[in-house]
Amino acid sequence: MNTATHSDTRKPLQLSAATGRLRASPIRQLFALMDRADVISLAGGFPPVEAIDTSGLRAAIACAARHSLPESLLYGPTQGYAPLRELIADRVRVHGGRLGTDEVLMTSGSQQAIDLVARTTVDVGDTVLVEAPTYLGAIQAFRAQGARLVSVASDDEGLDTEALERALECALETERPTLLYVIPNFANPTGRVLSLRRRKHLLSLAVRYGLLIIEDDPYGELYFREPPPPSLHALATDEERQWIVHLSSFSKVLSPGLRLAWMTAPESLMTPLMVAKQIGDTHTASLSQLVAYHYLRAGSLEPALARTRAFYRMQSQAMQRALERDMRNLLDASTPAGGMFVWARTRGIDTSALLSHAISHGVAYVPGAAFHVEENRNDTLRLAFTSARSEHIEEGIARLARAMRHVASS
Amino acid sequence: MNTATHSDTRKPLQLSAATGRLRASPIRQLFALMDRADVISLAGGFPPVEAIDTSGLRAAIACAARHSLPESLLYGPTQGYAPLRELIADRVRVHGGRLGTDEVLMTSGSQQAIDLVARTTVDVGDTVLVEAPTYLGAIQAFRAQGARLVSVASDDEGLDTEALERALECALETERPTLLYVIPNFANPTGRVLSLRRRKHLLSLAVRYGLLIIEDDPYGELYFREPPPPSLHALATDEERQWIVHLSSFSKVLSPGLRLAWMTAPESLMTPLMVAKQIGDTHTASLSQLVAYHYLRAGSLEPALARTRAFYRMQSQAMQRALERDMRNLLDASTPAGGMFVWARTRGIDTSALLSHAISHGVAYVPGAAFHVEENRNDTLRLAFTSARSEHIEEGIARLARAMRHVASS
Repeated sequence: MNTATHSDTRKPLQLSAATGRLRASPIRQLFALMDRADVISLAGGFPPVEAIDTSGLRAAIACAARHSLPESLLYGPTQGYAPLRELIADRVRVHGGRLGTDEVLMTSGSQQAIDLVARTTVDVGDTVLVEAPTYLGAIQAFRAQGARLVSVASDDEGLDTEALERALECALETERPTLLYVIPNFANPTGRVLSLRRRKHLLSLAVRYGLLIIEDDPYGELYFREPPPPSLHALATDEERQWIVHLSSFSKVLSPGLRLAWMTAPESLMTPLMVAKQIGDTHTASLSQLVAYHYLRAGSLEPALARTRAFYRMQSQAMQRALERDMRNLLDASTPAGGMFVWARTRGIDTSALLSHAISHGVAYVPGAAFHVEENRNDTLRLAFTSARSEHIEEGIARLARAMRHVASS
Repeated sequence: MNTATHSDTRKPLQLSAATGRLRASPIRQLFALMDRADVISLAGGFPPVEAIDTSGLRAAIACAARHSLPESLLYGPTQGYAPLRELIADRVRVHGGRLGTDEVLMTSGSQQAIDLVARTTVDVGDTVLVEAPTYLGAIQAFRAQGARLVSVASDDEGLDTEALERALECALETERPTLLYVIPNFANPTGRVLSLRRRKHLLSLAVRYGLLIIEDDPYGELYFREPPPPSLHALATDEERQWIVHLSSFSKVLSPGLRLAWMTAPESLMTPLMVAKQIGDTHTASLSQLVAYHYLRAGSLEPALARTRAFYRMQSQAMQRALERDMRNLLDASTPAGGMFVWARTRGIDTSALLSHAISHGVAYVPGAAFHVEENRNDTLRLAFTSARSEHIEEGIARLARAMRHVASS
């Protein structure tokens, strides 16, 4: 065939250098397992049906369909639906922060916000600092942009800002980091909270070293007893605020399926972010924005949040009880004060190798290696207490204990 | 102040090289003018409220709220809601194409699809071919990726594939183009349709030169009398299909505000596209997908399309009448057979310079320069007959004629 001759001389389909840096999420790959009825998933960090205010959202959808049908279906501004941005800014001010309607940019989830910051600030070879361990989706976005990812230690007080200061002091001019990505509240995957002392220290370092800080805060409202300290954005002086990008999301407190989050950034970054957003998807889905608008305007969020906090606290307690009962000599696990995750360490078992055994025992989790920028053998794991029903959490931990004993004895 | 000393020594906030290549859309900037009651907009190429099946979509939203509330609110697969992808593939097959459910990737509008292809295939300095003129959002996405944009001439039969063949023959090895972006049906901004003969020629060139083709088809269903020739994707042999990325959108036929489109690509590109999509926004809004699912399943699309075609035909006729009446000696304008746009040429008036006069006369359009990759003086302009009410189209054209006479006489 004539075409065969052509095939021999032409080049293959070209993929970009960025494609070589893309890595699929092992967590999203685990999602496939969750459809298996026999596997209890302690893997995914997402709200279950029980934690979603279905009736409140149904009412908000009905309201959007009744009162906002042209707007919900038409093109909207890239920055987002102004009345929704106004409600968001109002709510931040009620909680003691400062935010103007014009300073809010709506995004299609915080994942997009991270990607937009990466695209507008990071060049190939730039150094990006992250907590060790940190959110996988952020690692992916910075890596796709060609960042050199460097981790900074964290402990029970969150990111170790002393270690960060030493790293910044010692950095060569050419290797000065472009930005730091941090989750100050009930972090993914560790559940840790950055202490007030360290927040203030971090803000001073941002100004001193000209370090842009991405403060990603999807979990801050999911506290079990006391709210965490104020956000970096709220604590910052005017000068410090010039180095803070603040991300907040409706995915964990309202609905992940709406793909709705918002961000605010230093003024010089807002225009590039909006142009990048315009190129990325024109604007965030109008219907999602209008549903959130009617939901917030009805005053439904605060009571729903109170219920969600109580629900997650109960789920967390169920996991704590199970861990104490079954894991006493197998795992050293954290006791979270909010959020969605328990962070645990085995006594020498490689959790990546353990996973297939766990799944054959009928339970899934995320190996700690997924949250680290250096590839290495790893004895940590993340257990989500949000996605499984509470009666399954107990059974899931029991299965994991059996899998660990099986591996330890073989 | 102590901080002043710091300010002097630290670097300013860093923006990426890509940010330097970002350009805001002059069309989106024109959107601001559309809120001015005294300006008739012939600028934006988007469906007006009248062309949207509000009652059908209200029913679909109600259906999603009644029957699909968990799915509409929860995280979904990156590739998109499978039952929606199945309906899309079914519909393509009914119209004579070939498409499997697994070959469909849902995107947050076609703008995202273009951006995903750009990110996964284009490196800085790569050559990307586009029609002259072409869709601005595509120019922006390729430019952000650092592409060297080279235009290929087009005429009444659409992209000039003979000119393309000569360009491909003469291209140096180092400057061989990565891809060609083309809108074969009722193109933005020209309204032109690529002839069947040229479609076949283009497919043979794709295989012969290993040229990836992005076939962007948001307007193909908006024909006034006869459907356009089959898509490149439908015409392609198995071998040719290895070079075709096909984009289709619900924005012009259903609702732009849902931000819903779909794409299919050669197998080797599908996985990188999905990983890039995951990094970009995790997945497309579930609520939008479920609304479209219920709308398609109810069989509402075909009758709505018939109404939309009749409506746009009527709008187009209103513009043709006004052009014949007022512009006989001022503009040479196309007579579109579908889509949303008239493409016109002045007799020597620079349309970028004309715009501010037009706006002060109470009418807006998009200057042709916005659709060209080379910056130059330009005597073309795009007139959309979709977004203004038909009674305003006539008045808008009359105002534009007055503005042109004013400029010509001054």
